[in-house]
Amino acid sequence: MSDFLNVLGDDRLRRQLEFVLEIDKLKSVFRRTYLLTGDRRENSAEHSWHIAMMAVVLSEYSNETVNIGRVLKLAVVHDIVEIDADDTFCYDDAALLTKAEREKRAADRIFGLLPDDIRDDMRELWDEYELGESAEARFAAALDRMMPIMHNISTGGRSWIEHKVTRTQVLTRNAHIADGARRLWPVVEAIVDMAVAKGYLIDE
Amino acid sequence: MSDFLNVLGDDRLRRQLEFVLEIDKLKSVFRRTYLLTGDRRENSAEHSWHIAMMAVVLSEYSNETVNIGRVLKLAVVHDIVEIDADDTFCYDDAALLTKAEREKRAADRIFGLLPDDIRDDMRELWDEYELGESAEARFAAALDRMMPIMHNISTGGRSWIEHKVTRTQVLTRNAHIADGARRLWPVVEAIVDMAVAKGYLIDE
Repeated sequence: MSDFLNVLGDDRLRRQLEFVLEIDKLKSVFRRTYLLTGDRRENSAEHSWHIAMMAVVLSEYSNETVNIGRVLKLAVVHDIVEIDADDTFCYDDAALLTKAEREKRAADRIFGLLPDDIRDDMRELWDEYELGESAEARFAAALDRMMPIMHNISTGGRSWIEHKVTRTQVLTRNAHIADGARRLWPVVEAIVDMAVAKGYLIDE
Repeated sequence: MSDFLNVLGDDRLRRQLEFVLEIDKLKSVFRRTYLLTGDRRENSAEHSWHIAMMAVVLSEYSNETVNIGRVLKLAVVHDIVEIDADDTFCYDDAALLTKAEREKRAADRIFGLLPDDIRDDMRELWDEYELGESAEARFAAALDRMMPIMHNISTGGRSWIEHKVTRTQVLTRNAHIADGARRLWPVVEAIVDMAVAKGYLIDE
């Protein structure tokens, strides 16, 4: 398929371009969320772009001062492991139990396509995001949790209804939005109240 | 659809979130390029993510030292105007004549959804990219031109064949790759030679 890589004399560049081609697969990993048009589910590549754009226009809501370039790197890198590990629905308790192990194996393989120095940079970014180790990681994660809530309320609660999600699940699973962007949390609460009133979320 | 925005007391945040929802439409703007799986054409949102990821792993190939955070901002912002102006195929001479005017109108409307200060930041990013005014813009543009060539050679030249593209067109339309990343230009030349040999490109 990509036999042009074989004619490259430069092994470093060949590995970099092989990785660039490999990650095209993230465009075929589908999330539970629907596009606002309702036409189809969202894929993880376009989702990653959306989170990066949120970071650009909402940076003032980060609890701490952030290096926006670092936030963007975290946003575009954080879901690449889903190429092998698939997207894990945040309300799927069984899948969440195996998520870390599946994603770790994926990171080993996919980032391992790269030259060692870049592989290590990518792994550091991914670990930082997963562990919420920095202000940038906490802010990126807040946006990543915020967007599907906005998608859901704007598409008739479609994904929530399909998966019988409850008010408590949304509020507890997404509580760490406040760790990265506490000024966005009241928006989540307003959306959840509206969703319960409309019957999109179960109020147990 | 997004009536939760009406309950927000904060007009600034309301405008920012309205923009965040509006740009979901970029996921429904389709380019001429096919995914490597061949399943469908690529959309402009996932393409923008891919260019941002290329910037992260290929930054060493920029002709000039770049602020990678700025490159990422340019990458994620540069195609948003296509929500109104649609993607313009780089070998469509007629469409290219009207591209600047269509995209300018789109930038006015879409970035105009934002509070003035962020609107101005976005417009500055978009202008910088379009005019190739900075090292960051030239590098981002080089990656943006490089990727469809890699997609084409990896999908049996499908989009080139559909549109009867010639060797000369590819080499002339993409010559500015060398302005941003001259070390990537030999890869383009190797791909073009291979594409001509395989009959993907017309050698007039």
